[in-house]
Amino acid sequence: MSGRGRFVSFEGGEGSGKSTQVERLAVMLRERGHDVITTREPGGTDGAEEIRALLVGGEPGRWSGRTEALLMNAARADHVEKLIRPALEEGIWVLCDRYAHSTLAYQGAARGLESDELIALHFIATQGLWPDLTVLLDMDAEAGLARAASRKGNETRFEEEGLAFHREVCAGFRAIAEVDERMAVVDAGQAVDAVTAEIFALVEDRLG
Amino acid sequence: MSGRGRFVSFEGGEGSGKSTQVERLAVMLRERGHDVITTREPGGTDGAEEIRALLVGGEPGRWSGRTEALLMNAARADHVEKLIRPALEEGIWVLCDRYAHSTLAYQGAARGLESDELIALHFIATQGLWPDLTVLLDMDAEAGLARAASRKGNETRFEEEGLAFHREVCAGFRAIAEVDERMAVVDAGQAVDAVTAEIFALVEDRLG
Repeated sequence: MSGRGRFVSFEGGEGSGKSTQVERLAVMLRERGHDVITTREPGGTDGAEEIRALLVGGEPGRWSGRTEALLMNAARADHVEKLIRPALEEGIWVLCDRYAHSTLAYQGAARGLESDELIALHFIATQGLWPDLTVLLDMDAEAGLARAASRKGNETRFEEEGLAFHREVCAGFRAIAEVDERMAVVDAGQAVDAVTAEIFALVEDRLG
Repeated sequence: MSGRGRFVSFEGGEGSGKSTQVERLAVMLRERGHDVITTREPGGTDGAEEIRALLVGGEPGRWSGRTEALLMNAARADHVEKLIRPALEEGIWVLCDRYAHSTLAYQGAARGLESDELIALHFIATQGLWPDLTVLLDMDAEAGLARAASRKGNETRFEEEGLAFHREVCAGFRAIAEVDERMAVVDAGQAVDAVTAEIFALVEDRLG
């Protein structure tokens, strides 16, 4: 392969199946001969994973939305400059479980920060790196939280927010998808294979 | 006392004597009947101190200037919203060992980030909170580093940068002082009591 790699982010509320679909798309792309990296946010590099630990653990109220947005962008800056941008420049596809749209939905729609501030912050952190395609795995907050609750772990700071918060997140994602042409909405309530098939078709159609 | 408190920040390179002068000014102000809080950056609140640990420990190259600036502003957002702004609103004086000018000097002048980006970031993090007075304890980088080296501790990530870096920091502070009317330059190479006397006179003159 030659030229710049493609950058695909997966977004959605808790329990929407992002990590499963990231791995399935990676397998398909590798079978077609592409070099692929799968990664996640917050995190993806050693430094960003340390920042993740501050964000996803502890009491729900430990950080305001404003501080959260700054920490998310600090982690993103490290991730972009050390992993994502170098990979794309080498022609590698990057599939990322959450990226900037999560900040718009969680810290923007749900915590009330202004989009203008979050967009300005994104530009400072990433120097304007947006995905070539963002797949929104759309699901009602109730169904997603029920799925997420079945997982173990201590990264529960966001999951512990109430249902009203997660409804704002899901509504926020849908509102962004209406104005962002690079974002495609997939019904995550379908059978998992049907979701995968829809994502493969999207990637073929949009990124060739 | 009534009305809003006053916010005084102390800036300067490593070993310029900021923490000593912060404590001396606090004693003087309390003797005159003011309520006074002394604090520091990065840090000052539980959350911001956790972010501090990421910033001041470890290898000098672990974060880029860009990620550093975002982490500094995340810590500052927490510090401002939980400690500094509430104190000022209660009429308390806040004396802070480092604040936003350090970000302009370290991540701006020395690490090369643009002032415009750093000012935009400061506005997002603090919603525009600048000190009423900033005291720059001005000292040559060589002399300051020699003083700083005599301290113990593991918060040495910035101190381990070379002399050229610290000269950029000191020059950066001086350049900011030329354009910021709220910043006063004090020669930190004087005897410590002379520095204190000059700071007391400044505070009387500027903040009455």
